[in-house]
Amino acid sequence: MSVTAAKGFRAAGIAAGIKESGNPDLALVVNDGPRLAAAGVFTSNRVKAAPVLWSEQVIKGGQVSAVVLNSGGANACTGPRGFQDTHATAEKVAATLGVNAGEVAVASTGLIGVTLPMDKLLPGVETAAAALSAHGGEKAAIAIKTTDSVHKTAVAEGAGWTVGGMAKGAGMLAPGLATMLVVLTTDADVPAPDLDKALREATRLTFDRVDSDGCMSTNDTVLLLASGASGLTPEYAEFAEAVRAVCDDLARQLIGDAEGASKDIRIEVIGAADEDDAVEVGRSIARNNLLKCAIHGEDPNWGRVLSAIGTTSAAFEPDRLNVAINDVWVCKNGSVGEDRDLVDMRYREVRITADLAAGSASAVIWANDLTADYVHENSAYSS
Amino acid sequence: MSVTAAKGFRAAGIAAGIKESGNPDLALVVNDGPRLAAAGVFTSNRVKAAPVLWSEQVIKGGQVSAVVLNSGGANACTGPRGFQDTHATAEKVAATLGVNAGEVAVASTGLIGVTLPMDKLLPGVETAAAALSAHGGEKAAIAIKTTDSVHKTAVAEGAGWTVGGMAKGAGMLAPGLATMLVVLTTDADVPAPDLDKALREATRLTFDRVDSDGCMSTNDTVLLLASGASGLTPEYAEFAEAVRAVCDDLARQLIGDAEGASKDIRIEVIGAADEDDAVEVGRSIARNNLLKCAIHGEDPNWGRVLSAIGTTSAAFEPDRLNVAINDVWVCKNGSVGEDRDLVDMRYREVRITADLAAGSASAVIWANDLTADYVHENSAYSS
Repeated sequence: MSVTAAKGFRAAGIAAGIKESGNPDLALVVNDGPRLAAAGVFTSNRVKAAPVLWSEQVIKGGQVSAVVLNSGGANACTGPRGFQDTHATAEKVAATLGVNAGEVAVASTGLIGVTLPMDKLLPGVETAAAALSAHGGEKAAIAIKTTDSVHKTAVAEGAGWTVGGMAKGAGMLAPGLATMLVVLTTDADVPAPDLDKALREATRLTFDRVDSDGCMSTNDTVLLLASGASGLTPEYAEFAEAVRAVCDDLARQLIGDAEGASKDIRIEVIGAADEDDAVEVGRSIARNNLLKCAIHGEDPNWGRVLSAIGTTSAAFEPDRLNVAINDVWVCKNGSVGEDRDLVDMRYREVRITADLAAGSASAVIWANDLTADYVHENSAYSS
Repeated sequence: MSVTAAKGFRAAGIAAGIKESGNPDLALVVNDGPRLAAAGVFTSNRVKAAPVLWSEQVIKGGQVSAVVLNSGGANACTGPRGFQDTHATAEKVAATLGVNAGEVAVASTGLIGVTLPMDKLLPGVETAAAALSAHGGEKAAIAIKTTDSVHKTAVAEGAGWTVGGMAKGAGMLAPGLATMLVVLTTDADVPAPDLDKALREATRLTFDRVDSDGCMSTNDTVLLLASGASGLTPEYAEFAEAVRAVCDDLARQLIGDAEGASKDIRIEVIGAADEDDAVEVGRSIARNNLLKCAIHGEDPNWGRVLSAIGTTSAAFEPDRLNVAINDVWVCKNGSVGEDRDLVDMRYREVRITADLAAGSASAVIWANDLTADYVHENSAYSS
């Protein structure tokens, strides 16, 4: 599992003292090659953290020797000082490992607007480097947690090659971006352009369709590193499907562990004129606070689904809309359908199907309910 | 106060039995002229309730004799039956008052997707008509309450003429629409086109800039009726200002009574390239759930303001953004500014100022915090 499931990678996760709690907060992932190919997808938020600005440049070279990730501070909105800190972190990793700093990606997560304690982070890089292991993926996954209740890893096996990965993320999860810190690794021998294509396709259909709370992060980073250590180059389609499967697995884990959530809501929009319409409608439903509250209360309040659909520019006629909640078509032709008392909402997963009756395109968006626990987690302390 | 502050109007509010609680649920406002001029603004939600579809047609004629409003049911997403019920309600009012049904506006509020109990509503119209009084404005305002904790009225006095009004609304408050049920009346002698112009200008700057929970209703209706009973025709600018003042007063009352809210958040965007940019940025801040939670927790978490600004298409450079919370500039040039511990957030009103440093346009948006009480009110029962 995790980033060391594929051959050619070592990883470590240690406590550098960045978090006041003393919990693990620094992870290192090293690609031992022979190939150093890499691709990345970053937040589309225009306010980008220093490590995002840095790593975007690194990824342009198509080669990554190592990724250093810290929790305990996002290093976002920290000005020139923040960028210098990211640069110094990459230089420290480069010097410690004997690699080029231009091939060291950096990722940070935690509170925005606070500078990192470099007096703890830089010595931590040495500690992490000393702890690197071909079995260190699990510890790396643990070290990037913030409000995550569990660490998140996934793996997909090909014929003689592997794609594995780790993710962190429990809030500020919304589409239009990568939505979290994710590192994927593979020992397949795949050149950077193909990695980039496979990663973009996968994130578009997985992380980009997760919308826990409508809030877009400044730090989201998804990296895919290939070591080529298997000596095998799979068919592109087969490889892309493995990348998609790992991303999908991790995306579902993010929704399943979202802050304060008690329900995972699978929103499927069908009958759309095109995929863009389906995604727009799915997101409008996913972001409707009133509906999210109703789902929390196990109330099949389909009127709130219709009022959300009505805010979009998608092609539909109001009197042709159909909505099912857990397969009961509570709204037919824009009006009252089957008896809402037939809807059983006791389980964590709730399925909403919105039929626009305007075509044959569809999309699935995953969301969470809105709970008092979410409010508590995000109001009781800065995060 | 309310809709009977202006001369030439009678109103009533009674309990027709639409609400199971037995609370008042039916209001009637009658224009006794001599003028019957009227204008209206309606929800921009594409899923519109039957009474909205009806009243939009009525308003096109520029004359309204009476408005009938019910709480206890939105008559939205109720199909052809719902529209027939609205039509029958207007016909009943017309027959009872001896006016033309095409001059009777209808407004409804309550749960979406439930048909109205016409066996109670229609007899209620007769009861309300019998109770009509030149002092009935307060009772009418009470009868349109849903989850509102208080009824809402306002008045502005001109030289010999008056603009008064009532409003209801406590949730599903968001811009891009009228956001609530509002009836304004005036005894000024103003023709329908001027009423329309004054009302659109006023709602654009008041109700359209209230965003309590980002959720757009299917039923929002704002009506302005002129009786001409004062015999005076004020200067347009003076009249428009009075309409704006009453709308602003009512809009602030809506924010102050929003479901479960503990804070009223005044978001002022300054330094914008144009007003559209200022409004877009203001709304993105107003709708950020993480920020709304932080404000609830009295945490001046300016990083969440920047991450919200970063999702917009407004003109700005990330490293030139400035943010003040309660006048403390906690973010300067996109980075750490004054000490956040200086921010005092004990009071209900919280002021966020976002300076885009990109021009001289500005806008104010009002929002609420996100609280466990909001979740409770919107999950514990259907509304």
